[in-house]
Amino acid sequence: MKAAVLQQTHHPLVIEQRELPDVSEGQVLIRLHAAALNRRDYWITQGLYPGIRTGVIQGSDGAGVVEAVGEGVDSDWIGRQVIINPGLEWGENEQFQSEQFHILGMPSDGTFAESICVPASAVFEKPAHLNWHHAAALPLAGVTAFRAVSRAEVKGDSLVLINGIGGGVALLAMQFCMALGARVLVTSSSETKLQRALEMGAAGAYLYCQDDWVKQVLGDHGMVDAIIDGAGGTGYRNLLQLAGPGGRIVNYGATAGPADRVDLFKVFWKQLKLIGSTMGSPADFEQMLLLVREAKIEPIVDSVFSLEDVNLALARLAESTQFGKVVIEINGINS
Amino acid sequence: MKAAVLQQTHHPLVIEQRELPDVSEGQVLIRLHAAALNRRDYWITQGLYPGIRTGVIQGSDGAGVVEAVGEGVDSDWIGRQVIINPGLEWGENEQFQSEQFHILGMPSDGTFAESICVPASAVFEKPAHLNWHHAAALPLAGVTAFRAVSRAEVKGDSLVLINGIGGGVALLAMQFCMALGARVLVTSSSETKLQRALEMGAAGAYLYCQDDWVKQVLGDHGMVDAIIDGAGGTGYRNLLQLAGPGGRIVNYGATAGPADRVDLFKVFWKQLKLIGSTMGSPADFEQMLLLVREAKIEPIVDSVFSLEDVNLALARLAESTQFGKVVIEINGINS
Repeated sequence: MKAAVLQQTHHPLVIEQRELPDVSEGQVLIRLHAAALNRRDYWITQGLYPGIRTGVIQGSDGAGVVEAVGEGVDSDWIGRQVIINPGLEWGENEQFQSEQFHILGMPSDGTFAESICVPASAVFEKPAHLNWHHAAALPLAGVTAFRAVSRAEVKGDSLVLINGIGGGVALLAMQFCMALGARVLVTSSSETKLQRALEMGAAGAYLYCQDDWVKQVLGDHGMVDAIIDGAGGTGYRNLLQLAGPGGRIVNYGATAGPADRVDLFKVFWKQLKLIGSTMGSPADFEQMLLLVREAKIEPIVDSVFSLEDVNLALARLAESTQFGKVVIEINGINS
Repeated sequence: MKAAVLQQTHHPLVIEQRELPDVSEGQVLIRLHAAALNRRDYWITQGLYPGIRTGVIQGSDGAGVVEAVGEGVDSDWIGRQVIINPGLEWGENEQFQSEQFHILGMPSDGTFAESICVPASAVFEKPAHLNWHHAAALPLAGVTAFRAVSRAEVKGDSLVLINGIGGGVALLAMQFCMALGARVLVTSSSETKLQRALEMGAAGAYLYCQDDWVKQVLGDHGMVDAIIDGAGGTGYRNLLQLAGPGGRIVNYGATAGPADRVDLFKVFWKQLKLIGSTMGSPADFEQMLLLVREAKIEPIVDSVFSLEDVNLALARLAESTQFGKVVIEINGINS
């Protein structure tokens, strides 16, 4: 089978011919129809991820059809259209992942390949309303966004601020919040992205590169109940200002680095919660799928590349101009 | 009646003769037997508190006997030994205080006086096992510590780190955690305070001025489940290191200033919650009293001064060498 392999960091992935993997006990073999990229894939190619090994097939997100099952797995799975929960061995505590927790695509072989073997427990029926592109775009961004939204205690009457709209997690977080009935404000450095978010139903959109954007938000909407942020950095202090009494600020990332100064007086006086969230548990994944099915949520797809063009896809991600997920088509949609 | 009044910031409180206050509808008149100091009282004398007015009787904590009741209040209250919840008009949301929320002793007249009028809803039966000194030492530190402990989700199997042991809130937080069955580690810059905390049942005690104290804690006990901190400042980064996966860090103050750099990577990877907490709601106050009664908790009293010596009491607080609450005796204990 064809597969995109990390042979050296700071170099393009190499398209190789690999043996079809053996299906071990408790596993299923999936013929993949689509995969999707996450920022994690880019960080790995840049050598910026813990535990990087070479010779590994990249890719965390994938969807396809079960072709074979290992010992102990119900053969009913064969022929089913499935998506994969890429987070393996979360562990027993819902509050945090175990030390054994890992994500498909490093250190174990991932989804940028024609086929993959994964534990049957990581496989879920593809929501019927999703096409292969949508299905592949959902897993890792979906579970990350869902856990962030749930840790942010978003409810039907919440006003939520989501930073950096256009990223896969931010967009799905917006869709989940809206499905729960919340009003969502978004920020970006791109007017185009703000425009698209407004078309999707955002209640307000702000250019965070404008000096007075915080004042604008406060003037238009007042303080917010919850904030979902993947950036941190020097902009974090604005979030403390925007969070209303009892507010929750959830960070699922810190692409702009550490928060350089956190005014704890604001934190205790406003009784805030600053909450970290990364990826999600199997329970988060299942609840995310429930919401996706109920609210017929479709992840936004930015662009689609062939497996052979995986390095162009990674370049698209590196630009940070995408709006939605960058998808890899594998084995042809109608095959 | 005699009362200690703020006539000018950066000056000693003035002992004055005041008219006995009138008992309005819904209020009770309490003849006070003891009051206690909070850091807030010191900040106010230094002009470092929002909304300072002169001519106000200082003091938030007090305990005494009900002498009269206003219209609409059950006359059964007369003669009862009571303590006062100094937090008024919390509002309807348990998560945060309303804009009307205020604390006895500024801007309304407080407990450094022979008598006080307060709303009947702020008055609670004095726990029978507490003497007047203990009773006066409990209210504001108690409700603050209780809310902090409860927001830190402390349970019977928790390992909790409490910074700055010796302060009124820190000590009561330790007592509450131990009453819940948790193991408590403490820090201080004073060996004497650490020794006393160990005698009270702390499972470990660390001098935070020693460079390797974080390593020592990790070596002795591993990472902790919850941290209760009133300091913040440059030491905050240590807390992020000490908090284990799923850990909660609650700040009820920030005497050392803003947290200068918060490594959000640690926050999201360890799925931490950084939680602000200040004072507490009426529900917090009632639950705190329940725990105090059940576990027969006695607040630690550092020293006792007469009302006339209130400025010596404030000086004792300013030194920060106290271990426990600084109490003011009023009207004689046996009167």
